[in-house]
Amino acid sequence: MNYRIIFYIIGWVLNIEAAFMLLPFFTGIVYQEPALWSFMISGIICLAIGVSLTFRKPRRQYFYVKEGYVTVALSWVFLSIMGSLPFLLSGSIAHPIDALFETVSGFTTTGASILPAVEDLPKCILLWRSFTHWIGGMGVLVFLLSLLKLAGGSHMNLMKAESPGPSVSKLLPKVHSTAKILYGIYIVMTIAEFIVLLVSGMPVFDALTTSFGTAGTGGFGIKNDSIASYSPLIQIEVTIFMILFGVNFNFYFLLLLRKWKQAFSNEEVCCYFAVIGAAILLISWDIRGLYGTFPIALRESAFQVGSIITTTGFATCDFNQWPEISRTILVMLMFVGACAGSTGGGIKVSRFIILIKSTGKELSSYLHPRQVKSIRMDGKSIDHEVVRNINVFMIVYLLIFAVSLLVLACDGTDLITNFTAVAATFNNIGPGLELVGPSANFGLFSNPAKLMLIFDMLAGRLEIFPLLLLFVPDIWRKF
Amino acid sequence: MNYRIIFYIIGWVLNIEAAFMLLPFFTGIVYQEPALWSFMISGIICLAIGVSLTFRKPRRQYFYVKEGYVTVALSWVFLSIMGSLPFLLSGSIAHPIDALFETVSGFTTTGASILPAVEDLPKCILLWRSFTHWIGGMGVLVFLLSLLKLAGGSHMNLMKAESPGPSVSKLLPKVHSTAKILYGIYIVMTIAEFIVLLVSGMPVFDALTTSFGTAGTGGFGIKNDSIASYSPLIQIEVTIFMILFGVNFNFYFLLLLRKWKQAFSNEEVCCYFAVIGAAILLISWDIRGLYGTFPIALRESAFQVGSIITTTGFATCDFNQWPEISRTILVMLMFVGACAGSTGGGIKVSRFIILIKSTGKELSSYLHPRQVKSIRMDGKSIDHEVVRNINVFMIVYLLIFAVSLLVLACDGTDLITNFTAVAATFNNIGPGLELVGPSANFGLFSNPAKLMLIFDMLAGRLEIFPLLLLFVPDIWRKF
Repeated sequence: MNYRIIFYIIGWVLNIEAAFMLLPFFTGIVYQEPALWSFMISGIICLAIGVSLTFRKPRRQYFYVKEGYVTVALSWVFLSIMGSLPFLLSGSIAHPIDALFETVSGFTTTGASILPAVEDLPKCILLWRSFTHWIGGMGVLVFLLSLLKLAGGSHMNLMKAESPGPSVSKLLPKVHSTAKILYGIYIVMTIAEFIVLLVSGMPVFDALTTSFGTAGTGGFGIKNDSIASYSPLIQIEVTIFMILFGVNFNFYFLLLLRKWKQAFSNEEVCCYFAVIGAAILLISWDIRGLYGTFPIALRESAFQVGSIITTTGFATCDFNQWPEISRTILVMLMFVGACAGSTGGGIKVSRFIILIKSTGKELSSYLHPRQVKSIRMDGKSIDHEVVRNINVFMIVYLLIFAVSLLVLACDGTDLITNFTAVAATFNNIGPGLELVGPSANFGLFSNPAKLMLIFDMLAGRLEIFPLLLLFVPDIWRKF
Repeated sequence: MNYRIIFYIIGWVLNIEAAFMLLPFFTGIVYQEPALWSFMISGIICLAIGVSLTFRKPRRQYFYVKEGYVTVALSWVFLSIMGSLPFLLSGSIAHPIDALFETVSGFTTTGASILPAVEDLPKCILLWRSFTHWIGGMGVLVFLLSLLKLAGGSHMNLMKAESPGPSVSKLLPKVHSTAKILYGIYIVMTIAEFIVLLVSGMPVFDALTTSFGTAGTGGFGIKNDSIASYSPLIQIEVTIFMILFGVNFNFYFLLLLRKWKQAFSNEEVCCYFAVIGAAILLISWDIRGLYGTFPIALRESAFQVGSIITTTGFATCDFNQWPEISRTILVMLMFVGACAGSTGGGIKVSRFIILIKSTGKELSSYLHPRQVKSIRMDGKSIDHEVVRNINVFMIVYLLIFAVSLLVLACDGTDLITNFTAVAATFNNIGPGLELVGPSANFGLFSNPAKLMLIFDMLAGRLEIFPLLLLFVPDIWRKF
């Protein structure tokens, strides 16, 4: 294991985190809040550690798969620990585990909060909460790769480990340029949403934090009732942007290249919109009685479906009170998740497409035992390795889910609360049902349960394997 | 598709069913119940159809995989429809869908009932209910194969389709002999339990029906409170026999051959007992406060764990009232299920072992990319085909589970009721939690929901693929 390069990268991640902390720091200056000092101190600590780790450039800059995974997993752990400092230093959150929970929830774009009320918090703290979503959405290592030019190539292994989805397609031959384009699209879309919200009458601070939360598909709000108190127009705009940020970014890249046909025939994107459409219609029909007119039911349904499938987690109403069939559909969407290569979480639409295709192939092999058929997606045949990897992913997913459920059950909370709490954190959504519903928070859990959920959020964001690899003793052997 | 041989086999299945109906018929004579005529009439109808289908022996007696699957699936459908006649004709159950639910629940060894009270039913009807468990436990086609000598070989494809587990091992070179040995062990163990229960003071009728229910890991009781009103001794005996019937029958065959070492080093059996032991201890500790002394908690825990993991579904207490951690463990055991090659249902211990091993292999491939490792179980390397089949099984399992959940949600019942109702029928257990808990029944569901659960029970017993194949239009094409 090349420890030198691992710690070199972690050092850079902390340097970047220190730079990112300038934004809440300046916010603190603008609003003249004493909490700004917590960002000053945290930033200096980050920089001190970061600079000491990046002082000497390692000679060997090659990344094997395992180094990529370990680097990404450790980077996220350090990022989260350092990111929780401002919450602790400012006194906004008293307990270190709670602060870590809130920070991990931010970076992993989960948006599950342990805070019962957020409106009393200093604005700079609120901005940092929402900003962590934006940082974590596209990934801090992808950001690093867009800045840093490492020698030796093979940094695809770094990007692979952080980017969501069953396989990562390089948009351009160089990882450096791919990362730049991804962040370019990300920034432009975030600014677009900010302007649209501003024009629709949202205050600047609200528009900024909401854009960060939408772009990262995070879900931390700055109001206790999330997005419910904003105008219907703003709610519709947020719905559209949530759904747009759940689309595979390759789609936007193809649009930029004017490859319209290739873009719009993307199976994952088509399937994603089909699922959203079906879910919105089914739920609007189911809840039409609750909201008087069908258009309002449609708007509420669209917002909640968009929020859940993209794993954002904003809410405009307490869907915990909806009828059972709508609740069941929402729980299922929690697992489907957004497209691969988006900022959304969950199992991802493309994984389900490949799983269903491989099932069809298996069934047809009973009928035509001698026929050899390969699974195709977007005209390309899917690598056998990818299919096996998805299968293993699903199994590990279920095993971790079961263990989490058992840990949470020790708290004595009911089965639906536990089940949806794990589903909402593991899929990086935010709110669940019952005691962790949209109008509730995660503060009720014990510390062991919170630690389990912290693990679930990180495992969900990094798609399990990088984090799991840290627990394989073999990996720490020097060779 | 060789339709001739398919209907020939179905004809034999109905002939055998007619013969099986003699047992409740004679019971009716003994207890002088008018309901006995319903068995007479049903038996004659079975025989009439059966004889007309078996009148001419088909020339080609070869079974391809697809014919094996279709035969098994259709046999079970016809078996269930004909088996529901006595309930309807005797007036014990008024609605045909309810009667079908009860019969499918019997044959698939589920034990979920739509009847709120069973003690008023005629004894011959109660016997038929329990006897269906016994018939379905080892499988009616396995029984047929032990009687019927088909020319041409390849009847392994029939047995494969009906026997539970990821792969079937022939105990002896000939399918005919393998089936005979399996039924031999099955009958001897059933008689052993019958005698043990009789000696412990259980009335003859109770001992007989309880033995049938235990042997098939079914769970229909003849008392409204299942096994709760019997003595602690009897409860312990039933616990032991339930667990024994959940063991892979290969284990007993190895014992018969005195291959002790090979028998006791069977990974699945060891793992099965380890899971049972761990679950019993955890739950006893959790519920110790409810039952005064630890030994009573241990007995209650052992009974319920044995009943759920073997998917029998008997109960000695209302575990729906237990604390959340015990409930969560029981729900997980519902999915684990018994050993492959036993009469129990669920996903099966061996599938989980292989899944966990293939996950370990995947993780280690990140560390040592160039190493080629195969998955081994019981000293033999597992065929790649088997692993892939299990992966696909898990995915289809989840998809059917999700669809079932959605259908049940239309009834408006709560999520835990729906989730455990699907889990309890799909895994062929019987009782779930909340509205379908041990002290409740499945009568509350609407007809569409009941039909969905009937599908789930059959899909669970036949391990999905045979039944699913009936819905592939391609299969009905003549070629």
